Amino acid sequence: MVKVSVIMGSRSDLATMQEAMNMLKEFGIGYEARVVSAHRTPHAMVQFADEAEARGIQVIIAGAGGAAHLPGMVAAMTTIPVIGVPVQSRALSGLDSLLSIVQMPGGIPVATTAIGTSGAKNAGILAAEILALQDLNVREKLKAYKQKQTQTVLDDAQIEICE
Amino acid sequence: MVKVSVIMGSRSDLATMQEAMNMLKEFGIGYEARVVSAHRTPHAMVQFADEAEARGIQVIIAGAGGAAHLPGMVAAMTTIPVIGVPVQSRALSGLDSLLSIVQMPGGIPVATTAIGTSGAKNAGILAAEILALQDLNVREKLKAYKQKQTQTVLDDAQIEICE
Amino acid sequence: MVKVSVIMGSRSDLATMQEAMNMLKEFGIGYEARVVSAHRTPHAMVQFADEAEARGIQVIIAGAGGAAHLPGMVAAMTTIPVIGVPVQSRALSGLDSLLSIVQMPGGIPVATTAIGTSGAKNAGILAAEILALQDLNVREKLKAYKQKQTQTVLDDAQIEICE
Amino acid sequence: MVKVSVIMGSRSDLATMQEAMNMLKEFGIGYEARVVSAHRTPHAMVQFADEAEARGIQVIIAGAGGAAHLPGMVAAMTTIPVIGVPVQSRALSGLDSLLSIVQMPGGIPVATTAIGTSGAKNAGILAAEILALQDLNVREKLKAYKQKQTQTVLDDAQIEICE
Amino acid sequence: MVKVSVIMGSRSDLATMQEAMNMLKEFGIGYEARVVSAHRTPHAMVQFADEAEARGIQVIIAGAGGAAHLPGMVAAMTTIPVIGVPVQSRALSGLDSLLSIVQMPGGIPVATTAIGTSGAKNAGILAAEILALQDLNVREKLKAYKQKQTQTVLDDAQIEICE
Amino acid sequence: MVKVSVIMGSRSDLATMQEAMNMLKEFGIGYEARVVSAHRTPHAMVQFADEAEARGIQVIIAGAGGAAHLPGMVAAMTTIPVIGVPVQSRALSGLDSLLSIVQMPGGIPVATTAIGTSGAKNAGILAAEILALQDLNVREKLKAYKQKQTQTVLDDAQIEICE
Amino acid sequence: MVKVSVIMGSRSDLATMQEAMNMLKEFGIGYEARVVSAHRTPHAMVQFADEAEARGIQVIIAGAGGAAHLPGMVAAMTTIPVIGVPVQSRALSGLDSLLSIVQMPGGIPVATTAIGTSGAKNAGILAAEILALQDLNVREKLKAYKQKQTQTVLDDAQIEICE
Amino acid sequence: MVKVSVIMGSRSDLATMQEAMNMLKEFGIGYEARVVSAHRTPHAMVQFADEAEARGIQVIIAGAGGAAHLPGMVAAMTTIPVIGVPVQSRALSGLDSLLSIVQMPGGIPVATTAIGTSGAKNAGILAAEILALQDLNVREKLKAYKQKQTQTVLDDAQIEICE
Repeated sequence: MVKVSVIMGSRSDLATMQEAMNMLKEFGIGYEARVVSAHRTPHAMVQFADEAEARGIQVIIAGAGGAAHLPGMVAAMTTIPVIGVPVQSRALSGLDSLLSIVQMPGGIPVATTAIGTSGAKNAGILAAEILALQDLNVREKLKAYKQKQTQTVLDDAQIEICE
Repeated sequence: MVKVSVIMGSRSDLATMQEAMNMLKEFGIGYEARVVSAHRTPHAMVQFADEAEARGIQVIIAGAGGAAHLPGMVAAMTTIPVIGVPVQSRALSGLDSLLSIVQMPGGIPVATTAIGTSGAKNAGILAAEILALQDLNVREKLKAYKQKQTQTVLDDAQIEICE
Repeated sequence: MVKVSVIMGSRSDLATMQEAMNMLKEFGIGYEARVVSAHRTPHAMVQFADEAEARGIQVIIAGAGGAAHLPGMVAAMTTIPVIGVPVQSRALSGLDSLLSIVQMPGGIPVATTAIGTSGAKNAGILAAEILALQDLNVREKLKAYKQKQTQTVLDDAQIEICE
Repeated sequence: MVKVSVIMGSRSDLATMQEAMNMLKEFGIGYEARVVSAHRTPHAMVQFADEAEARGIQVIIAGAGGAAHLPGMVAAMTTIPVIGVPVQSRALSGLDSLLSIVQMPGGIPVATTAIGTSGAKNAGILAAEILALQDLNVREKLKAYKQKQTQTVLDDAQIEICE
Repeated sequence: MVKVSVIMGSRSDLATMQEAMNMLKEFGIGYEARVVSAHRTPHAMVQFADEAEARGIQVIIAGAGGAAHLPGMVAAMTTIPVIGVPVQSRALSGLDSLLSIVQMPGGIPVATTAIGTSGAKNAGILAAEILALQDLNVREKLKAYKQKQTQTVLDDAQIEICE
Repeated sequence: MVKVSVIMGSRSDLATMQEAMNMLKEFGIGYEARVVSAHRTPHAMVQFADEAEARGIQVIIAGAGGAAHLPGMVAAMTTIPVIGVPVQSRALSGLDSLLSIVQMPGGIPVATTAIGTSGAKNAGILAAEILALQDLNVREKLKAYKQKQTQTVLDDAQIEICE
Repeated sequence: MVKVSVIMGSRSDLATMQEAMNMLKEFGIGYEARVVSAHRTPHAMVQFADEAEARGIQVIIAGAGGAAHLPGMVAAMTTIPVIGVPVQSRALSGLDSLLSIVQMPGGIPVATTAIGTSGAKNAGILAAEILALQDLNVREKLKAYKQKQTQTVLDDAQIEICE
Repeated sequence: MVKVSVIMGSRSDLATMQEAMNMLKEFGIGYEARVVSAHRTPHAMVQFADEAEARGIQVIIAGAGGAAHLPGMVAAMTTIPVIGVPVQSRALSGLDSLLSIVQMPGGIPVATTAIGTSGAKNAGILAAEILALQDLNVREKLKAYKQKQTQTVLDDAQIEICE
């Protein structure tokens, strides 16, 4: 069952947003992924946002770059949680994407993550954390993932001792 | 006849956007001014943008602050010129507003002006410049305004000579 | 029942974080609010993060300013969703707070909101959106809140028509 | 008939500004393109700006980088609309170009677009939007362009469904 | 004899530029001060720059704020040294003024000083340093000024010893 | 015995640097405080730096604002630890001070703290931490200070529980 | 004997932090190097910080990038000096790392160095400067290193004389 | 006769500073070029600055990157004009270099040019402009250079006319 919708402003954002999809797959969470452009397909975006909840979507992950309006606009039209991923832009390295997504006015939250692939990966994990509140299976997988992540660092932590 | 629509994301933007309205009045251009919020009234915004051209609007001036999506979203849904005014925001002094408005992707232009009241004033003048291309009356007023502006500086240019 | 824990790095952050608490109250969500300082009470912070899930906390809202480590550190030690609010700092207006909170490495998400009171308010709403996925009562209140917000803007949208 | 003048501060800006020219060609709008340097050919720039309107130019698109004075200086000497394109600079990635162009004082508007090729492309489209107010042919082409742009995204929107 | 011309883009820059004038007075250097606006009086600016050398001006000090084009444009039209002073702007605190003045392309130098009154004061001293190369009297005064400046700090250097 | 030298570029930095002095007093560490200006008393600064170690100084705390050269220049001329405090500047809020102090080239370290009074306070504590490595008395005081700091937060941590 | 602990948030920081290790080796100072991640191994980090002093560690050098919490968190849990090295990050070039490390609140100092390898190198030298206060051998080596550094520049200072 | 001294903080700055030397050669101005490091050869820098005027140096061009103290420190110790060139740095692209050089306190001017090679080229031209005030030969060459620069642009100004 599709619970998370991963949308992005352009096909060129896919290299970044793939990380979010990978995480959802990792946690066994059904998702859909598609291009929804605030600027090039505004009416389709409105329709998407208006119908998302009724379609059973529980979390939306939206990635965009530059003057990144997609996450905030979708958040304006739904009450399900929207996670915004600032895609790294060419001239300003994603600082424009970040500010366009995170600096939302009071009343319309967007849960913003880091610029680029780290942010996309974390968007996937954050969606899992939200769904895990009502899904023990995801919760277990999240904990196992986190423990494995810790163990991997611990196993390879030693670099050098030079007395 | 209303030819220019001055919209803003919030009543609190009026102190800034009043400068645009003053300029339109100065040039004898009919306008309407209203609050249209991309985030709090998204469907009304869509309706506004979809109907603007049919209502005879020829230029839209849109002011917004922070994650300022209004100018870009309206531009996405019309082919009449949209002028964006970055309103000065509290924490980041309008740098967020500016980048959210100006860094539009290829395909959807927003004619961006300076942060704050200077930008609002210039938005009004720019609208007049656009309309003047087909309205000799406005063109004459624009030229007179500019000449007066020049003369005012010239008349009061001398400060001090200290030999 | 306390479902949301609102923590902040310092008493001086309360003026900002009060907005988050107001929203939770608005939506009838039980919460606790306390000072937990990553830097001045690090072991208490660890204990807080380690115990939060077992105590029935479902969402953590963490506000901090400057080198703001509280949200990210708590997120590192739990798998429940952590929302980070960048408090406006004196010298750099919260840009330091924002980057310290949002630029988390892949693996440890923090759902970041805007700098200052807007961000705190949105953190409260975002927590409600997350809880609403399993609480019809909160969902209804959220929708009513959003509709009222829209209506308030629409009712007072008209500023001037000057033909 | 040449209606739009595309000027740029240096031959090296042509790679960017070509995008504006491509758009004008797309919409069947006559244009000229030349190097006019505010700093290296200031008197030629003055002559250009002083004569533009009499030569039948209706919109000027000016691209420049670094301390980018060309758009603002031309705007100072004409009342036809001037669109400014911030060319991406080497050290500061166009942030200097952007601020030099957009932060004009009240009285002298420059319609600023995004940094780099997206901004140049949008400058061409914006010029078309301005001319379309009095040219049904351009208006139709603009609408067709925008619809095609939307359709292209819609046709290739689906990425993956993973249930 | 007037050797230095202190120009500024607006009367409102006088509070800043007065510091430059004070320094010139301190060193007994003849100067004139006037408003020359790149944007509001462009042709007067061209005339000013074209005639400056013939009028015996040896150094030009130009202050401006925001999209500050005055120093660079004057420098484009003369070969006498031009000193640029970035006036502190409202929204961006003079960062826009600084980048607009200092980031000149190769071929057209502007000797840029600090943002605001410190920069204006230093512009006056820098002009004196340049003129001192051919004026022993100014050179002596400069050295005396600098020694006095040093002595003033040394005389009041001790704050506290706490053993 | 004077072990720490607190220097600052100007009397106006004293309001900031007083915090460093307060901390040293708190830990019973002998210090001297004086104005040493890299720019207005460069030779006195050289003498200060050259003699500091022989005078028994073990740590230097140097505060400066704007183009803040004092910490780095003193560090260039001694091998005792130099702590740099970026004083908040007027136009750029201390971002210039911070970058001027922290971005030292490889070979010449400056231990940089935060912009403004927090940074000055931390400079005093850091000096104590360094001296505590060889002074049990200071070490005990540091630990007591830190425990008290923690306890103060814990004692006043509870804000509200709203079930 | 291990006196300095070089820790870093990730294996990928080793290329940067190697410079710190090289310097410690140069000065004959015993050190250990290991990965300690604030976010992926938070409890191991707490244990590390709590035990460092008892293990005889006298200086900690901590490198991290992005939302870099490691230096500040370790500093929160020990009273031995902590040196923070901002590792250059991908999107924001280390500006996020720098602000996350240096902008610590009053009470918890982190001795911050420059972004990247220069900062890592200087962290190693700074640690040596601190240890040299009680170790004549290191002090001699530091002075020799600095003199050699000076001599190397002097020996190769001449570039060209063109009369 | 050597009239201009071109100094730089490191051999690696030569690629940038060569542009200044090329310009001086172009105008037939005698110069010397050498490495003078504020941080690695501070005493040699003091000696250089103290002796420059007596050695007949009339203008100093100083290039440095990062925490760039060389131009300001030399300016502190002489009354001949000092031109500062911000060399492009690795992490922050020269923004740190620029602010470290230009934000000098009142009393100590540094004539700052653009970041990188354009700034170095302009430093050479600015030195020529200063010397030209007393050297007709240089003045003629400057004018010829500028005219040729203008002519080169004019000769190749035409790009395309598309009617």
